[in-house]
Amino acid sequence: MLSIGVDIGGTKIAVGVVDEEGRIVASTTRRTPATDPELIEAGVADAVAELTADHEVAGVGVGAAGFVDADRRTVRFAPNLAWRDRALAAELEELVRLPVVVENDANAAGWAEYRFGAATDAAHMLMLTVGTGLGGAIVLDGQLIRGAGGFAGEIAHMIAVPDGQWCGCGLRGCLEQYTSGTALVRSAKRRAESGDPLLEPLVAAAGGRRKDIDGPLITTLAQEGDPGAIDLIADLGSWLGVGVASIAALLDPDVVVVGGGVAAAGNLLVEPARQRFEREVTAGRHRDMPSWALARMGNTAGIVGAADLAR
Amino acid sequence: MLSIGVDIGGTKIAVGVVDEEGRIVASTTRRTPATDPELIEAGVADAVAELTADHEVAGVGVGAAGFVDADRRTVRFAPNLAWRDRALAAELEELVRLPVVVENDANAAGWAEYRFGAATDAAHMLMLTVGTGLGGAIVLDGQLIRGAGGFAGEIAHMIAVPDGQWCGCGLRGCLEQYTSGTALVRSAKRRAESGDPLLEPLVAAAGGRRKDIDGPLITTLAQEGDPGAIDLIADLGSWLGVGVASIAALLDPDVVVVGGGVAAAGNLLVEPARQRFEREVTAGRHRDMPSWALARMGNTAGIVGAADLAR
Amino acid sequence: MLSIGVDIGGTKIAVGVVDEEGRIVASTTRRTPATDPELIEAGVADAVAELTADHEVAGVGVGAAGFVDADRRTVRFAPNLAWRDRALAAELEELVRLPVVVENDANAAGWAEYRFGAATDAAHMLMLTVGTGLGGAIVLDGQLIRGAGGFAGEIAHMIAVPDGQWCGCGLRGCLEQYTSGTALVRSAKRRAESGDPLLEPLVAAAGGRRKDIDGPLITTLAQEGDPGAIDLIADLGSWLGVGVASIAALLDPDVVVVGGGVAAAGNLLVEPARQRFEREVTAGRHRDMPSWALARMGNTAGIVGAADLAR
Amino acid sequence: MLSIGVDIGGTKIAVGVVDEEGRIVASTTRRTPATDPELIEAGVADAVAELTADHEVAGVGVGAAGFVDADRRTVRFAPNLAWRDRALAAELEELVRLPVVVENDANAAGWAEYRFGAATDAAHMLMLTVGTGLGGAIVLDGQLIRGAGGFAGEIAHMIAVPDGQWCGCGLRGCLEQYTSGTALVRSAKRRAESGDPLLEPLVAAAGGRRKDIDGPLITTLAQEGDPGAIDLIADLGSWLGVGVASIAALLDPDVVVVGGGVAAAGNLLVEPARQRFEREVTAGRHRDMPSWALARMGNTAGIVGAADLAR
Repeated sequence: MLSIGVDIGGTKIAVGVVDEEGRIVASTTRRTPATDPELIEAGVADAVAELTADHEVAGVGVGAAGFVDADRRTVRFAPNLAWRDRALAAELEELVRLPVVVENDANAAGWAEYRFGAATDAAHMLMLTVGTGLGGAIVLDGQLIRGAGGFAGEIAHMIAVPDGQWCGCGLRGCLEQYTSGTALVRSAKRRAESGDPLLEPLVAAAGGRRKDIDGPLITTLAQEGDPGAIDLIADLGSWLGVGVASIAALLDPDVVVVGGGVAAAGNLLVEPARQRFEREVTAGRHRDMPSWALARMGNTAGIVGAADLAR
Repeated sequence: MLSIGVDIGGTKIAVGVVDEEGRIVASTTRRTPATDPELIEAGVADAVAELTADHEVAGVGVGAAGFVDADRRTVRFAPNLAWRDRALAAELEELVRLPVVVENDANAAGWAEYRFGAATDAAHMLMLTVGTGLGGAIVLDGQLIRGAGGFAGEIAHMIAVPDGQWCGCGLRGCLEQYTSGTALVRSAKRRAESGDPLLEPLVAAAGGRRKDIDGPLITTLAQEGDPGAIDLIADLGSWLGVGVASIAALLDPDVVVVGGGVAAAGNLLVEPARQRFEREVTAGRHRDMPSWALARMGNTAGIVGAADLAR
Repeated sequence: MLSIGVDIGGTKIAVGVVDEEGRIVASTTRRTPATDPELIEAGVADAVAELTADHEVAGVGVGAAGFVDADRRTVRFAPNLAWRDRALAAELEELVRLPVVVENDANAAGWAEYRFGAATDAAHMLMLTVGTGLGGAIVLDGQLIRGAGGFAGEIAHMIAVPDGQWCGCGLRGCLEQYTSGTALVRSAKRRAESGDPLLEPLVAAAGGRRKDIDGPLITTLAQEGDPGAIDLIADLGSWLGVGVASIAALLDPDVVVVGGGVAAAGNLLVEPARQRFEREVTAGRHRDMPSWALARMGNTAGIVGAADLAR
Repeated sequence: MLSIGVDIGGTKIAVGVVDEEGRIVASTTRRTPATDPELIEAGVADAVAELTADHEVAGVGVGAAGFVDADRRTVRFAPNLAWRDRALAAELEELVRLPVVVENDANAAGWAEYRFGAATDAAHMLMLTVGTGLGGAIVLDGQLIRGAGGFAGEIAHMIAVPDGQWCGCGLRGCLEQYTSGTALVRSAKRRAESGDPLLEPLVAAAGGRRKDIDGPLITTLAQEGDPGAIDLIADLGSWLGVGVASIAALLDPDVVVVGGGVAAAGNLLVEPARQRFEREVTAGRHRDMPSWALARMGNTAGIVGAADLAR
């Protein structure tokens, strides 16, 4: 049975028809009109209509950044879009005449990895999405963990350092401030400004302009073997490992999946994370260590996961 | 249908026949011969035989401190007993001729609270047992979370302070070092030694002997209104609140249950925890706060929970 | 004997003729042309010429933000002005035909407090200037401590929190990020954004615009008894106390002077600092606690101190 | 002119006649009767009498662990000896009929390095004695810094980690808990207990008994190239570097001397310290880095320094 997955990002609405093996059989996109909830919904409906003209589908799954109620029908709060307590599923069902479920985008992408990607062998999966921010998804015994109000999986806001770096969420020392694309770039700029000689090749690669340092540049240099860029990504990975060690004390996963833009660095990110994790997880001599894997589903994970959750 | 619950502690094996409403209808005890796994098992079998003489039971649930495999049959490692990779369920089944399941004791106690105690209304429960150490149990959507190898719920060993207090587990800064009965007493002694005037009544109550300060004394004084003892327990609670804030970012529970010996301090412990939690949990303005409750099942929670898990 | 003190700030050059009791007997100002070292020096020379027309002086002392060499003649680096390795004393002596000494502005202000202000009884003074940033000055046995390269007294950049808040200096967790006017305002804004109800009166006083919260507004509200503003300043003071506790372990001062714009909050700042200090200083039962005092010399401390150092 | 230096340790009183170039021309020892102040003083007097029989001396300098008043006559508190507010100089002058000054032992040893050892070129010396604990001495512009009550130089009790490891002084997170012989051994034992494979050679060298690991064993293995032992000492050094970075922000020394038993590891300790320091000191691009040196005066530094201070 086919279903439709929708991934509402900050700039683009990506929509696809997905089969039961997680393959996208048709897709389309619309631009995201961020300021108007009704326009976003109209865009989604229009794209769904285009795809349902040629495909019979059982339902629609929508992934969006933000907090989604545990009943998967209401967006409580979406920081980058205009939704506040928006009954998104009901509004869309009105427009598309199909059953709709809504899910947090990181949860949808995690679900895709669990069902079709890097964690198909997992009983208990932890997925970390190291993009601009830090996203997370948890699957335990085949169940996606949403929590009482849909707020579960906010790995970004576990406290890594008491009284540490201020976070946009209003707290101090959130893990996201230490392991995310934003943290990577900030750390690079700060170290460059303080004259760290290890970062001179990176500054040179940015045309001598420290403010032009960005994540892809760091990743590219790291893959070319630049010690400064490798060190920056390893530091990020080390923090990731510490964070996962605390999560593993709580949940004991058997597979840890790392995705997101920074995961393009591959083992330059994952190996330091894994090594730090194995040093910092409790009862390391007694437990089986989880396996670590890079995400495999790529940019379409959100579509595929959302579609699968709609079935 | 009746079942038997067994709680193997450091000094005593407590065994009870439990009905489907979580009531203990008969019970007995044996001393714990800590040094010999076979003697412990013989003691359990003997107690079970005593109780099954008068009651027909469906099975036996055993709770013990330590890491229990996810299949609930093998004790991987029990720090205070002599078990290492012990096939406890199989050994006991041989002796008692009944189906046996094994569970971590904090998990068993947490399950009792979820089924019959403070969290019967919960969809997603987090239980914290603040005794000598810090135990934890997690129930999500009605499922006790054990993790891949039975190592889940080790809240004690989430890292609260990077490079903080050394923990018996070999790591630094584990939450247990900041919020447990041991931490309470150590903190009291250290502050007393450094001459903190706020602790003078506590030292006086210990007969002037700082080394005689213990947890029950602190709790008693706190309940009598002594500001120093109240401050010590509030500090413990504050750390508990921080820890739960990180857990809530991950799991978003709707009920937090606080049990264990230190929970005898009641709201003197829970209120500071709750207040700190509400300040330190992410997205506090958008989420529904969990309710906090004191454990209700008392010392027999382990028996009741283990028995219920055996059904 | 009279001497001249010069205080080069970001917007204004303040110049005064100072007598041996630290009294300013004549003064004038010029605007600071920040982008051109020679224009700044010309401005200083012009102001000195105006004052020496009517007063006979022994020399000129110049205070400026930045790192001044231990020989007090060269500005190594001035973050907000255009000087880099500038032989300021020699350049000015050429222009004003008087002996010139250069000093870090916080050192100059501290020296004024030691000689004529809040610390005239001190043998060993620590001064903290809590303004936009955090400045410091140390006088031990009557000697202003400059260090090998004039870099002493940079209290701002002691590490208060490992891996803490990024600092403009390129490090993480510098004390200035926790106790300075900038830290005060940032903390207020973050807490307001996260919906802290305690800060509602402050937001209201800022006309409902969180971005309009500034230091004087917080101080004013605190002095009017607003609990939120008092809490913000007390938190700043608490960090100040921790920092001074580490410094006292090293230097054991007998007087701690607190100045700068935030010190307008008076005991709302100093009392929390002193209390935290007394809890966190080592050997508290054995040592004599230093006395804490508010700075008395006001805005002209820099002029008076620089002039006195020129004698 | 000759003078006598006395070093009162926990087990031995070492006494020497010292010339103006810091050479010991005669020496003797007595055992330390720790429980009786008068017996200690009698022992000192007896040893002094033995030496003054053959040498004419100008005075006696006494170094002892503990807090010595700024007038250098009274021992305020000596943690390992029986002195509390003891007028040691007056008592001894009565017995030996020579002028006596008393000094903290780390200060005396630091003074010896400054006058005759590793820091004769220094204008501003910081000395760190990494022995069982962590001692310190500060010389600025030729003046030994004692502070208002003789409590200066207590580098051990600067706070390195907020809420970190409890310290014997009653505080948490003191630097001594991270960089001292005691910290080295504790860290080794903890890591060995948690099964760190890197430490297996060390455990083997201790005969398989983790409790027999001690500082000299770690140092010896490190010098033989064992990666685990090298890592342990490097970690200690790294913390030393962080601590010195905070001190340098305050005092800007030009020479850092590292002594004490752990300094037997030489550059295995100092290089990691220096490297971490240079990364973590503020304004690193603008300041001249201090030079780092190993102490040269050995075990007699206390005698030589105390004797020189008596002149």
